[in-house]
Amino acid sequence: MNLKQLAKELNLSISTVSKALRDSHEISIATKSAVLSKAKELNYQVNPFASSLRKQKSKTIAVVIPDAANDFFGPVINGIESVAQEKGYHVLIYLTHEEMKKEIAIIKLLQNGRVDGIMMSLSEQTTNTSHLEELTEMPLVFFDRVVEHMTVPKVTTDDFNSGVNATKHLIQNGCKRIAFLSISPNLSISNKRMKGYQEALKAHNIEPDSSLIMSCSGEDDKIIIRRLLKKKNRPDGIFASVEKLAISTYEICQELKLKIPQDIKVICFSNSQTAALLNPSLTTIVQPAFEIGREAATILFKLVEKKRHHFMLERTVLNSTLIARDSTKARRVGKIKHSK
Amino acid sequence: MNLKQLAKELNLSISTVSKALRDSHEISIATKSAVLSKAKELNYQVNPFASSLRKQKSKTIAVVIPDAANDFFGPVINGIESVAQEKGYHVLIYLTHEEMKKEIAIIKLLQNGRVDGIMMSLSEQTTNTSHLEELTEMPLVFFDRVVEHMTVPKVTTDDFNSGVNATKHLIQNGCKRIAFLSISPNLSISNKRMKGYQEALKAHNIEPDSSLIMSCSGEDDKIIIRRLLKKKNRPDGIFASVEKLAISTYEICQELKLKIPQDIKVICFSNSQTAALLNPSLTTIVQPAFEIGREAATILFKLVEKKRHHFMLERTVLNSTLIARDSTKARRVGKIKHSK
Repeated sequence: MNLKQLAKELNLSISTVSKALRDSHEISIATKSAVLSKAKELNYQVNPFASSLRKQKSKTIAVVIPDAANDFFGPVINGIESVAQEKGYHVLIYLTHEEMKKEIAIIKLLQNGRVDGIMMSLSEQTTNTSHLEELTEMPLVFFDRVVEHMTVPKVTTDDFNSGVNATKHLIQNGCKRIAFLSISPNLSISNKRMKGYQEALKAHNIEPDSSLIMSCSGEDDKIIIRRLLKKKNRPDGIFASVEKLAISTYEICQELKLKIPQDIKVICFSNSQTAALLNPSLTTIVQPAFEIGREAATILFKLVEKKRHHFMLERTVLNSTLIARDSTKARRVGKIKHSK
Repeated sequence: MNLKQLAKELNLSISTVSKALRDSHEISIATKSAVLSKAKELNYQVNPFASSLRKQKSKTIAVVIPDAANDFFGPVINGIESVAQEKGYHVLIYLTHEEMKKEIAIIKLLQNGRVDGIMMSLSEQTTNTSHLEELTEMPLVFFDRVVEHMTVPKVTTDDFNSGVNATKHLIQNGCKRIAFLSISPNLSISNKRMKGYQEALKAHNIEPDSSLIMSCSGEDDKIIIRRLLKKKNRPDGIFASVEKLAISTYEICQELKLKIPQDIKVICFSNSQTAALLNPSLTTIVQPAFEIGREAATILFKLVEKKRHHFMLERTVLNSTLIARDSTKARRVGKIKHSK
């Protein structure tokens, strides 16, 4: 059913029907009412592209993320979509697969007016952000992996504090040589979590050792972790800034017959549903992923609908939660103390 | 940069520039070349909605799935997107959250021409499929959770055979009372996997017991599983048709102090990255999720681009893989046999 057929059914001109549907003052109320009831009866829907051309709004937002098969980005998409559905917006998903080249191509593609706004989380490889700085006309919100120096809204968790807390937790459970594993050091999240790690070491008078700060980009993470854990003076604690690196650590520990938590303790950022069921159960820092998606989308829609007031919160920080489990359990000293 | 500004820069009429960009025979090669090089220089891009109106193509497809935070649908999205990116298509994501009402609203919304085609996996609650049967004009491909009686392309795994194999595996490892857990029995995947389960019982002369076939919809799965495992004649094997139900089984076993695999063995369909690290490691049937996404998208693009030949494969079946781990390990009888 298109406009032409609807006009024919009503025995009216296309222009009259079109004006009636747009609630034009040139058309009588009686005609408008007849057009609307016939349109409803025949399930006529406005062509979204013609409508977008007139209104200069696509009612569509883009979400640009590294990967969809991910315990963090999955619930973030759910959160974004829950707001979009309430608002009647459509959600386009673009994946960078952690490649800067793909990220640039996607951003370029989105500049032609297909979307009303963009939400994104940076790719691991992105070292230059000029493609994002050029987006001056486009509403843009960063979440999780943000560009610190750009003055656009950012929704993150308290990465620095979480880094401090994770490291403290390991120290309090007896660790003295703690390694920090991250994916690219370019990422805001890696950087802030690492600064938290360094701060906690300093507060506990532990000499920092730069050979314990490892960046594991791409597919090589297991090689890097294996080399680290085979060292004579291997770490007694691992703080992994993303879940993937903790999973690899578990696998390498199995391979090298290292016991968690006796030989080495492990903590990581993770939104996995199975953390409590791992062998041993994994101590995690859980990010409020669904809420991050909801919050970032809510801010983006305010920008799109020009409800931005003179004061716009540039940074929204949601708190993560540390859940202590067996992978960081302290050695029991009770036996020695109480033995006769 | 819009068409008007581009025309001004070139000192040509809008109509001439527009025709040149569309490669019209009315325009000289010299002018076309001047227009194209200026357009490139100024990074002019065609307005996608004006372009869509002319071509009646949106270069966009919709993916309708129950949930994005899921170890199966995540890699499926990655697979779809990999084909869409090659083809220069955009991917809209819609979530039904397992609600038929939302599914109907989404399908209705998509009938107005915003997308060139739809790929979908049914919601758990969908009992009536008339909203899908009305989509006669719209290219449609089902994947995983399909509507069996509709003559549209379907991409699935070998659910029946996988059901047979999973059940056989439990029987061969000593199980005699095997429960089958699924989400909604309406779903094609639940139904086929259950038929495979029944077939395997029959082949091994095990009397079927309908009280061991449980449907756990919504949030109640733990209540249902707890009740099942507290029974006097509780099952000695669990075949979970989706990962969520195996995770719940693990949690209830922990709670009731039942040992896996000694007291009860567990197998399930799962694409989890952590299956091998669970306590105990979980025996899984792994679906080729990324490939399902790629295959379904490839078929959809053929339909969209009207490359459908007189013969169109209606059903594509990709094989799943059973990976045996500790959660189904047989009791070791070696000790008794070899003891002196």
